[in-house]
Amino acid sequence: MEKRALLYEGKAKRVYATNDDSVVWIEYKDEATAFNGQKKAEISGKGVLNNAITSLLFARLKEEGISSHFIEQISDREQLVKKVSIIPLEVVVRNVAAGTLASRIGYPEGKALKKPLVEFYYKDDELGDPLITDAHIEELQIAGLDDVRLLEQKALKVNAVLSSFFADMNIRLIDFKLEFGTTAEGEILLADEISPDTCRLWDATTYEKLDKDVFRRDLGSLTDTYKKLLSRLGGQQHV
Amino acid sequence: MEKRALLYEGKAKRVYATNDDSVVWIEYKDEATAFNGQKKAEISGKGVLNNAITSLLFARLKEEGISSHFIEQISDREQLVKKVSIIPLEVVVRNVAAGTLASRIGYPEGKALKKPLVEFYYKDDELGDPLITDAHIEELQIAGLDDVRLLEQKALKVNAVLSSFFADMNIRLIDFKLEFGTTAEGEILLADEISPDTCRLWDATTYEKLDKDVFRRDLGSLTDTYKKLLSRLGGQQHV
Ligand SMILES: Nc1ncnc2c1ncn2[C@@H]1O[C@H](COP(=O)(O)OP(=O)(O)O)[C@@H](O)[C@H]1O
Ligand SMILES: Nc1ncnc2c1ncn2[C@@H]1O[C@H](COP(=O)(O)OP(=O)(O)O)[C@@H](O)[C@H]1O
Ligand SMILES: [Mg+2]
Ligand SMILES: [Mg+2]
Repeated sequence: MEKRALLYEGKAKRVYATNDDSVVWIEYKDEATAFNGQKKAEISGKGVLNNAITSLLFARLKEEGISSHFIEQISDREQLVKKVSIIPLEVVVRNVAAGTLASRIGYPEGKALKKPLVEFYYKDDELGDPLITDAHIEELQIAGLDDVRLLEQKALKVNAVLSSFFADMNIRLIDFKLEFGTTAEGEILLADEISPDTCRLWDATTYEKLDKDVFRRDLGSLTDTYKKLLSRLGGQQHV
Repeated sequence: MEKRALLYEGKAKRVYATNDDSVVWIEYKDEATAFNGQKKAEISGKGVLNNAITSLLFARLKEEGISSHFIEQISDREQLVKKVSIIPLEVVVRNVAAGTLASRIGYPEGKALKKPLVEFYYKDDELGDPLITDAHIEELQIAGLDDVRLLEQKALKVNAVLSSFFADMNIRLIDFKLEFGTTAEGEILLADEISPDTCRLWDATTYEKLDKDVFRRDLGSLTDTYKKLLSRLGGQQHV
C-alpha cells in the first residue's frame, strides 16, 4: 500500500489517500485538545498509545462480530482503514452520568443511569458540537431517521461488548463517542477511533480516571495514564 | 368562586387555590424576565395585556376543537383555569429559525424550516431549562414516550391553528412554547399561557417583532408592542 496526498488533518489524526481508492491511511498525532480546542497540548506518546488502544479495541469488536473501518495497524502511529464519508454525528453512549450529561440533567457525576443512553451531537467545531434531536437531524438532512435508529442499535451493541471487555479488567466504561461513515457501496460502518480520548474509563474499585479527563482536569500525566490503560488491556507499547 | 391560598408564585404569574379543588385562580404579573431571570424589569400593563391575549388565544383554540385548562377571564389580570400537575417540559414548536435553534444548528435567524419542528426543554430554572431528548425524558422519568408523542401531536395541532389565525392578521408565528399538565383524572391538558412572552411573532411584511424579543433585545416599549399585537388580534385593553 502506498501513502498518497494528505486528505484531512483533524485535531488528533491525519488522513491520507492511498493507491487503493477504498482505503485511507491514518496517522495518530500527539496533540491533545479539549473544550472544543480551547485547551491544547503536545503530549509525547499519545498518538502511539491511542493507535495501539484503538487497534486493539477494533480487533476485539471484530471478534464479537462487530465490523468497522479498521483493516490493520501498520506502524506504531499508523493504521489502514476503509475509507468512508463520515456522517457528521457524534454518537455518544453513556452508562453513568458524567461531563455534559451530568450538568444537563442535574445528576451528580458517577450516578448510574437506568439503562444505556444514546445521544447525538452535531459534529461541527464552529457550532461547538451541540446536542441535537431527531427533529434537528431531519431538518439538517444529516441522515434519515431509519439510519439514526440503526446507529443507535449499533452503538448499543458496541457498548455491550466494550463494557464487558473493560469489566474483565476491572474498568468501568462510563461513556464514549463513536463516529460512523458510509462506504462508496452505501454501507454504514463504524469508523474513527475508540480510545481514552473518546471514552471515559474509571477503575471500577478506586474510580481512578483512565482517560482524557486527566488532561481536561489536570489530574496527572496523560502518557502514564494511557500506558497504564494499554497494559491493563493486555497490550504493550514502548513510548 | 373564592380565591384562597397562594400556591405558587412564578416569574410571570401567581397561582391561587380556590374553593373548588379542580380549579386554580391565576393572576398575571407585570414582571418581565429574560435569559433565565438574569434580565428583569417591571413593565406596567404587561400582566393585563398578556391575560387578554392568552384568554383570546385559548378561546380561539377551543373554537377549533383544542381544549385547554382555560375556563374564563374574570378580571383584567385574572383567569380561572383547571388545576393540573404541570409536566416539567417546555414544548417548543418552531416554523422559522430564531433564538437558540438558530445558534444550535447554524441557521440564520429568519430561515424557514422544512417543516414545523418540536423540541423539549426540561423545565428547571436551576439547570437553565436545557434541551433534552427522548432518552433524557425516559431517564428522568418525566413522561412515557407515548405521552411525549402525544404532546408533540397536540403541539403541532396548536401550531396549525395559531399559525393560520396569526396569518389572517398578517403576522408570522415564528415559534412558541407550550406547557401541558395532568388533571386529577389523568387527562393531559394544554395549560399555562400563550402570549407574546411565550411566542415569537413577526409582522409578515415588515418583520417587526411583536413579542418579548423587544424586551430581550431592547428594541422599544414592550407595553406598546403588546398593545399593538392585542389590537391586531381584534382585542382591546386600556392600560
Ligand atoms: N474511515 C475513515 N474515512 C475517512 N475519514 C475518517 C475515517 N475515520 C475517521 N475519519 C475522519 O478523520 C478526521 C480526522 O480525525 P480527528 O483528528 O479525530 O478529527 P477531528 O478534529 O474532527 O476530531 C475526522 O474528520 C474523522 O471523522
Ligand atoms: N392550570 C395550571 N394548574 C397549575 N399550575 C399551572 C397551571 N398553568 C400554569 N401553571 C404553572 O403556574 C406557574 C406560574 O407560572 P409562571 O409565572 O409562568 O412560572 P415560571 O416562572 O415557572 O415560568 C408555573 O409553574 C406554571 O407551570
Ligand atoms: Mg476526532
Ligand atoms: Mg412561565
